[in-house]
Amino acid sequence: MDSSAIQASFERLRSNKAFELFVVAVIVASALLVGAKTYELSPTSQRLIVGLDVLITVIFLAEISVRFIAEPDKRAFFKNPWNVFDTLVVMISLIPISNADMGLVARLVRVFRVLRMVSIVPELRMLLNSLLKALPQLSYVVLMIFIIYYIYAAIGATLFESINPALWGDISVSLLTLFRVMTFEDWTDVMYETMTVYPLSWVYYLSFIFFTAFAFLNMVIGIVVNVMSKESEKLSQLEARGAQEPTLRDVMERLERLEERLLQPRRSMAD
Amino acid sequence: MDSSAIQASFERLRSNKAFELFVVAVIVASALLVGAKTYELSPTSQRLIVGLDVLITVIFLAEISVRFIAEPDKRAFFKNPWNVFDTLVVMISLIPISNADMGLVARLVRVFRVLRMVSIVPELRMLLNSLLKALPQLSYVVLMIFIIYYIYAAIGATLFESINPALWGDISVSLLTLFRVMTFEDWTDVMYETMTVYPLSWVYYLSFIFFTAFAFLNMVIGIVVNVMSKESEKLSQLEARGAQEPTLRDVMERLERLEERLLQPRRSMAD
Amino acid sequence: MDSSAIQASFERLRSNKAFELFVVAVIVASALLVGAKTYELSPTSQRLIVGLDVLITVIFLAEISVRFIAEPDKRAFFKNPWNVFDTLVVMISLIPISNADMGLVARLVRVFRVLRMVSIVPELRMLLNSLLKALPQLSYVVLMIFIIYYIYAAIGATLFESINPALWGDISVSLLTLFRVMTFEDWTDVMYETMTVYPLSWVYYLSFIFFTAFAFLNMVIGIVVNVMSKESEKLSQLEARGAQEPTLRDVMERLERLEERLLQPRRSMAD
Amino acid sequence: MDSSAIQASFERLRSNKAFELFVVAVIVASALLVGAKTYELSPTSQRLIVGLDVLITVIFLAEISVRFIAEPDKRAFFKNPWNVFDTLVVMISLIPISNADMGLVARLVRVFRVLRMVSIVPELRMLLNSLLKALPQLSYVVLMIFIIYYIYAAIGATLFESINPALWGDISVSLLTLFRVMTFEDWTDVMYETMTVYPLSWVYYLSFIFFTAFAFLNMVIGIVVNVMSKESEKLSQLEARGAQEPTLRDVMERLERLEERLLQPRRSMAD
Repeated sequence: MDSSAIQASFERLRSNKAFELFVVAVIVASALLVGAKTYELSPTSQRLIVGLDVLITVIFLAEISVRFIAEPDKRAFFKNPWNVFDTLVVMISLIPISNADMGLVARLVRVFRVLRMVSIVPELRMLLNSLLKALPQLSYVVLMIFIIYYIYAAIGATLFESINPALWGDISVSLLTLFRVMTFEDWTDVMYETMTVYPLSWVYYLSFIFFTAFAFLNMVIGIVVNVMSKESEKLSQLEARGAQEPTLRDVMERLERLEERLLQPRRSMAD
Repeated sequence: MDSSAIQASFERLRSNKAFELFVVAVIVASALLVGAKTYELSPTSQRLIVGLDVLITVIFLAEISVRFIAEPDKRAFFKNPWNVFDTLVVMISLIPISNADMGLVARLVRVFRVLRMVSIVPELRMLLNSLLKALPQLSYVVLMIFIIYYIYAAIGATLFESINPALWGDISVSLLTLFRVMTFEDWTDVMYETMTVYPLSWVYYLSFIFFTAFAFLNMVIGIVVNVMSKESEKLSQLEARGAQEPTLRDVMERLERLEERLLQPRRSMAD
Repeated sequence: MDSSAIQASFERLRSNKAFELFVVAVIVASALLVGAKTYELSPTSQRLIVGLDVLITVIFLAEISVRFIAEPDKRAFFKNPWNVFDTLVVMISLIPISNADMGLVARLVRVFRVLRMVSIVPELRMLLNSLLKALPQLSYVVLMIFIIYYIYAAIGATLFESINPALWGDISVSLLTLFRVMTFEDWTDVMYETMTVYPLSWVYYLSFIFFTAFAFLNMVIGIVVNVMSKESEKLSQLEARGAQEPTLRDVMERLERLEERLLQPRRSMAD
Repeated sequence: MDSSAIQASFERLRSNKAFELFVVAVIVASALLVGAKTYELSPTSQRLIVGLDVLITVIFLAEISVRFIAEPDKRAFFKNPWNVFDTLVVMISLIPISNADMGLVARLVRVFRVLRMVSIVPELRMLLNSLLKALPQLSYVVLMIFIIYYIYAAIGATLFESINPALWGDISVSLLTLFRVMTFEDWTDVMYETMTVYPLSWVYYLSFIFFTAFAFLNMVIGIVVNVMSKESEKLSQLEARGAQEPTLRDVMERLERLEERLLQPRRSMAD
């Protein structure tokens, strides 16, 4: 049995519906395992979980191998970022680490196995892609919001540092405090504190809330308008492609040609 | 008087506007009764309420019977989930329970009588149906949001368990804490506590807030776009059905036929 | 000078731009006066304010009289709810009340003079009308949300009354507590308290938040879709009215008539 | 070398891509410097920062001069508000102030250098312009919301002043408290306090929340509808301009002319 025949049979296996469902089930099991580990467990359960963990790692390794062998062009395999992500997650699970000192890191890596759900289910992958595509168009509004934050944080760190260093100590702490104000989380406590020193400092908070809320509102409207205009574009393209409807211009041209051909022989008859 | 005549006369009763209004009034009365029971009452009032309760149960039983007898096809009656719901609510009210040990359950069951308002008023039933229809299309975004929650909860339960077991003890408690963070409910208290041990843990909270807010925003936009495109579809279908407007293609074909028929005899004349 | 001549001259005065601006200025002054009264004032300022108050009342009385006399049809005057509101506000200000016992009520009535701004500025009146017009279409969603609130409040008052009577004492207090939960205002404090007795009561809060948020979202989308479809309707009506564009059906009929008239004489020629 | 030749060469320099990028880099550096000053610094770093500050001021002065000389019409330069803003920010930085008494003001002025980012990057300038353009159309809704706030603040300051002067002392403090209620920031604490004196005061808070939320919702919908209708207008204008599509009216007129010309000679033939 030659290499291309093996590749073809693995490709059939990969496209098999039962194989896909089995992999999804294993990912769900690994997610449940990640959750189970956060509970206090009896030594027996812990040993069971370690065993299941090894089993899942082996299955993941086998699945990645199947998908790698099934790929006709081996280079294309690593051009797909999801394949790279899957391989990395499995590889790092394979590194033997003593449970004592690196156990925390090992457990955190296993958490990211849950993300393999996104790499396996095509609908989730599409959803994530569409989310990521929406990001660049927001870049200038996000930059604008960041400039507003930065200016207010610099003013806050300059004026209010002596009042409460824990909230306004330096510009990074001030940025965090301003994000807290933006989420309306006990923001009046922050305001009342500075108002004892600067009675007019409510102007600072209210203007900040209005500016960021207004910029944020514009961002949301921008996304909605963008999505809508894309939708209507798609619709009109579908119409154009699907039916190849004649346009009014076509009707007009046909009418002109008819007129020309009808009237021209008539004139010759009138001669 | 034979069975089908009875059925017909009950069907007339069921469709009677006064009968419908009477049932709605009884449901409103039962809702007020449910509310009244939550107040401290004198023994006289309590006896009155028990009496009214029995009366309402009897009226509901009569009304369900009318609707059952009015139905020409008895099997179809129980295929309608609202009929099943109504029958269940009334049947459970009939079970005799001593007020002492199961009183709480009996009172809770009576609360669900208020939901009969939805099963009686057609506009509310339609509204609920349209709400339920909107759910499946959201399934993948909801799954995505749950995956984000699950990963963050697993990380939180792993890293922060020793800091505050009441908030991060296991993955289910962590999920609840993250929902609290998402509603901005004293989320900075949660954050400041973990920042004393991990000074960079603000990255955890801020990234979580951004990811879920972004996914949620996309869900809302998805619903809006979906509703809008359905509306415009309905509109264009109405137009198409109502007037059976000729299309540009029809005009074009008519024009071609005219041209053909006009030019063909001319040629024969030119011969 | 007869009565209709007086009416006409008052109508000219009422429509005078300077008169309108003067009335708006007096309303603004009365609003500032209302604000000024909330401050601690010296006896001199207080006497000044009482004087200004009388002056404003006199001006308002004069203005209402002008508008009443200017109205050709006296009955129509009181059919306009804004005129009734204006007259009432001015009349109640005229009732002499001793500052001691009814002073609070007198001050509150004067606050509503600020609302005269809405009755005078046509743009604000239109805005309020459009807001009020949007209400009826929401009635069923609001009823649905109220049913959800009522059921949850009844359950809460039944289960949690013994835990904290201040929050869950009876159904009206429970409704207020649920509104508080809906605004995410320290809702976890409420939840953690009941979770000590019923560890699963988080289901109660989370399901309540999801149901109301979902119903509310649908309400907002309903308003947006409604406003949009009205806008597009207005647009298409404008197009139809403005240009009286021929439809494709008109073109088709014209084409058919042309065909008929062209082909019929031809046949006679072919005979 | 004459004056216009100098102007032309400076105009080339100003339009140079590298020059633009260099200015953006200096603005970013000045923003980082503003941030760095909020940290506790060693004397060496502080001296370095003062040096960098002077350097940035010199570069900004040079850049403004380049842009001023590059401008063919010197008067037009100061008609652009961004140029005025840039010049002011640089000029104020030049005023020598002793670090002791006016240091705070000097530091605050330097913060506004970050806003130069907006004046330099055209995309941000356009974004800000479109935000500012959206403001006037909102004026009446904002006025309406302010009237609601003012009336409620006057009522609150009248009724609740004796309960908590810190929250309801006068109308300006009441306005701030109402804004706090609107952001749901510990609003139940405010409400429960007044409910001990006026048990029905929840009506005050709930009606306020509903009115402002409803008016705010209408404002957002107003903006969305406005943006959308502008978008669709732009689209239809583009279509009209781009292709100059014939309208149905054109087709109809052509058809009529054809009919006229076809039937008229026919009649003469029939004679």
